[in-house]
Amino acid sequence: LRRHLPALPIVDITHDISPGDVRAGSLALERAVPYLPEGVVVAVVDPGVGTARRGVAVQVRGAELTLVGPDNGLLVPAATRLGGIATAVTLQPVCWPGTRSRVSSDGIGGATTFDGRDLFAPAAALLAGGTALAHLGPAIDPTTLARLPTPVCRAGPGGSLEAEVTWVDRYGNVQLAAGLGRLPVGLSLAPLLCAPAGQAPRRAKEVHTFADLGPGQLGVLVDSYGRLALCLNGASAAAELGVIETDIVVLSRAPL
Amino acid sequence: LRRHLPALPIVDITHDISPGDVRAGSLALERAVPYLPEGVVVAVVDPGVGTARRGVAVQVRGAELTLVGPDNGLLVPAATRLGGIATAVTLQPVCWPGTRSRVSSDGIGGATTFDGRDLFAPAAALLAGGTALAHLGPAIDPTTLARLPTPVCRAGPGGSLEAEVTWVDRYGNVQLAAGLGRLPVGLSLAPLLCAPAGQAPRRAKEVHTFADLGPGQLGVLVDSYGRLALCLNGASAAAELGVIETDIVVLSRAPL
Amino acid sequence: LRRHLPALPIVDITHDISPGDVRAGSLALERAVPYLPEGVVVAVVDPGVGTARRGVAVQVRGAELTLVGPDNGLLVPAATRLGGIATAVTLQPVCWPGTRSRVSSDGIGGATTFDGRDLFAPAAALLAGGTALAHLGPAIDPTTLARLPTPVCRAGPGGSLEAEVTWVDRYGNVQLAAGLGRLPVGLSLAPLLCAPAGQAPRRAKEVHTFADLGPGQLGVLVDSYGRLALCLNGASAAAELGVIETDIVVLSRAPL
Repeated sequence: LRRHLPALPIVDITHDISPGDVRAGSLALERAVPYLPEGVVVAVVDPGVGTARRGVAVQVRGAELTLVGPDNGLLVPAATRLGGIATAVTLQPVCWPGTRSRVSSDGIGGATTFDGRDLFAPAAALLAGGTALAHLGPAIDPTTLARLPTPVCRAGPGGSLEAEVTWVDRYGNVQLAAGLGRLPVGLSLAPLLCAPAGQAPRRAKEVHTFADLGPGQLGVLVDSYGRLALCLNGASAAAELGVIETDIVVLSRAPL
Repeated sequence: LRRHLPALPIVDITHDISPGDVRAGSLALERAVPYLPEGVVVAVVDPGVGTARRGVAVQVRGAELTLVGPDNGLLVPAATRLGGIATAVTLQPVCWPGTRSRVSSDGIGGATTFDGRDLFAPAAALLAGGTALAHLGPAIDPTTLARLPTPVCRAGPGGSLEAEVTWVDRYGNVQLAAGLGRLPVGLSLAPLLCAPAGQAPRRAKEVHTFADLGPGQLGVLVDSYGRLALCLNGASAAAELGVIETDIVVLSRAPL
Repeated sequence: LRRHLPALPIVDITHDISPGDVRAGSLALERAVPYLPEGVVVAVVDPGVGTARRGVAVQVRGAELTLVGPDNGLLVPAATRLGGIATAVTLQPVCWPGTRSRVSSDGIGGATTFDGRDLFAPAAALLAGGTALAHLGPAIDPTTLARLPTPVCRAGPGGSLEAEVTWVDRYGNVQLAAGLGRLPVGLSLAPLLCAPAGQAPRRAKEVHTFADLGPGQLGVLVDSYGRLALCLNGASAAAELGVIETDIVVLSRAPL
C-alpha cells in the first residue's frame, strides 16, 4: 500500500483472527465497520486462497466504504450492518499495473497462496487512489456472494432463548448473537438464568457495567455493540462457564 | 480518531497491558512519555468503566502533552515524571458533537462499558484538533485525582534495600522501583546480593549490558530507564528468580 | 521518530521476533524487503547491545533503501536479496543532535542496553530527514560486516536434498531454505518424500495451494516467497512433522 500511496492513512483493525477462522473474522469486521472513516477495507481470512473462490470488492450501500477480500462470507455481515451491498465486482488479477513485486518479477513467483499481498492489497491501493470499482473487474450479482450461516438466535423450550457465542473478547466476556430485542415475550434480563446448552443454569445479574458485580458473580449486560453479553467483574466469564465461540448458550426465566 | 482527523499521526504505545492491570499500565505510560512527541495521549486501563469514577484530561506542566483517560491512577505517574499536572478537567460526555457512532445512533447504544471508544478517544480527537482543555469539562483540583500506591522502595534490615518489581519485560529482565540514588549508604552494586523477599540471597554481578554476563550468571545493571534491573544473558531473570511484577526483591551487601 | 519527523509514514514490519533470535529476524527482514517502499528500515534484534559490536547503516545497491541496525548479521541477507550493499558506515553516537531524551538529560541515562531507541532510531530519523549516509559515521568495507551462517541447503545421500527450516509461519507452514531451482537432478516435487532428518519419510503431494489437500494430507508447494514449503490444509505441518526453525528436512524421491 505504501509503495502506491506513501501518505495514505492506514488503520490496522486486527491481526489476531485465528488462522482460517472466517466466521470470527466476519464478526470482528461487522463490529468494526460502524466506527471506520470513509475508505477501503481489506479483509483477509482466506483458507480457500488459490482455489476457484472469487476475490471481490463490494461497495456498501449508503456509506463511503468499500470492502475488498475473498468471496467466502467474510465481507457480507459488515456490509449488511451498514446498509447492504450497492455493487460488487470480481477482482481481475490482470488489472494491476506495477504491482508485481521484485520477487515475482524474478520469476520465482507464481504462488497462489497469498492473495492478501498479491491481489487484495493492490486492489485496495487502486481504489484508495481513486480507481473506480468498475475498473477492477466485471460486476457480479451481490446475491451470488457466499454467505456464512447466521449465528444462532432462536426461541427455545419454555420461553427460553438459544443464542450462539459470537465473540469471547480478551477479558473473557461472552458476547451472544442477540440484542435485547431478541428476547422472547416474558423473558427479561432480570431475573435471568443462563447456561451453556446441556448444563445446569446459573443465575445472572442484570448490570450496566462490570463493576456492578461482586466477586465471582455472573452478570448479563447489553454490551458496547448492543449485544447481550455474559460477564464477571475482573475475571473471564468464558472460562467460568466453559464456553468458546460458536457454543450455544440458553437464557431462561429465573424464579423470583 | 481517523473519522475526525484523517491525517493525524497516531502512535500505538502498547496494547499488551493485562486486562484491568492499572498499575502496569501506569508504569508503562510513565516509561513512555519522556520519548513522546507533543500531542495527546489516550490511556485506557479501566476496570471501573461505567461507575462514578471520573474521566479526565490532564495538561502536563511544562510539556506540550495532554493525557486523557480514567481517573483511577493511570495517568498521574506519567504526568509526575514530566513535571506534574498544570491543569485538569473532568470530561463531560455531552460535549462531543458528531461523535455518536452509527451503532449508537441506531438506538442500540447506551452501553457504559467502553469509554475508551465512546469518551476518551472522542475527547482526544477534539484536543488534537485544537479544542481547548477548558471546553471539555469543568476544571478539577489535580490533588483530587486518584493515585495508586507508589511502588515499594525502602530501607530494609542490615542496610539492605527492599524494592518492588515494577516491570518484567519480554526478555525477562526484572526492573525494580529504584535507581542508583536509592541505594542506602554502604550499599553499592558491586558486590551485591539479591533475592525475592524470604528467599536465599544470590550474588549478582554489576554489569553495563547483558553480554557482560556468563551463561546463567545473574546480573544487576542500571537499565535504559534509569532503574536497577536484574538480568541474565539471553535468558529470563524473572523465571530464574521466580518473581513477577509487584513482588519485593531485597538487595543487600555481599561479602567480598 | 515522530519527535523528529511528525508526519513520516511508518510501517511496523513485525514486533514478533523471539528475544535474541537474530537469525529469525534476518530471515523475516529478507522476506519483507522486496515489498517495501523507498525509505529507511530500522531492524533491531540485538543480544550484543552495549558490546563492541558495531551499529551500522547500509545502503542497498540499486534500491532506494537504507538498512539501520546492529552489525550482527541481521541486515545482510535483506541487502543481498535486493542487490547487495553499495556503501556502509559505522554509526557514531556523537552525531545525533537533539536526540537525548528527557530521561537521559536528567542524568539517569548512560545505559547501554537499548540502542534501538538511543542509536538506531535517531540514525534512521536523520536519514529519513535527508541526512546523507556519510554524515552518520565513517565508511566501512561491506565485506567486514558480520554474517550469519547461510541456511543449510545441500545435496544429501541418494539424490536427496537436505534443507533447513527457515520459517514456521503462524499457520504452521514449514518454509525450507530451497527454491525449485535447488532440487538435485532427478528430484522433482511429484512424487516426493520428506522427513525431518533421522525420521521415516512421508509422501508429500505437490500442490499449488492448501485447499488442494485432503484432511491430514501432507503437501509441498512453492510458497509466496518462492521457497519450497511443507503444508497441511487448515492445520499445522510443523506440528504434524514435529519440526521447528533450524531443523533439517530431507526431501527425496518417492517410489511411483
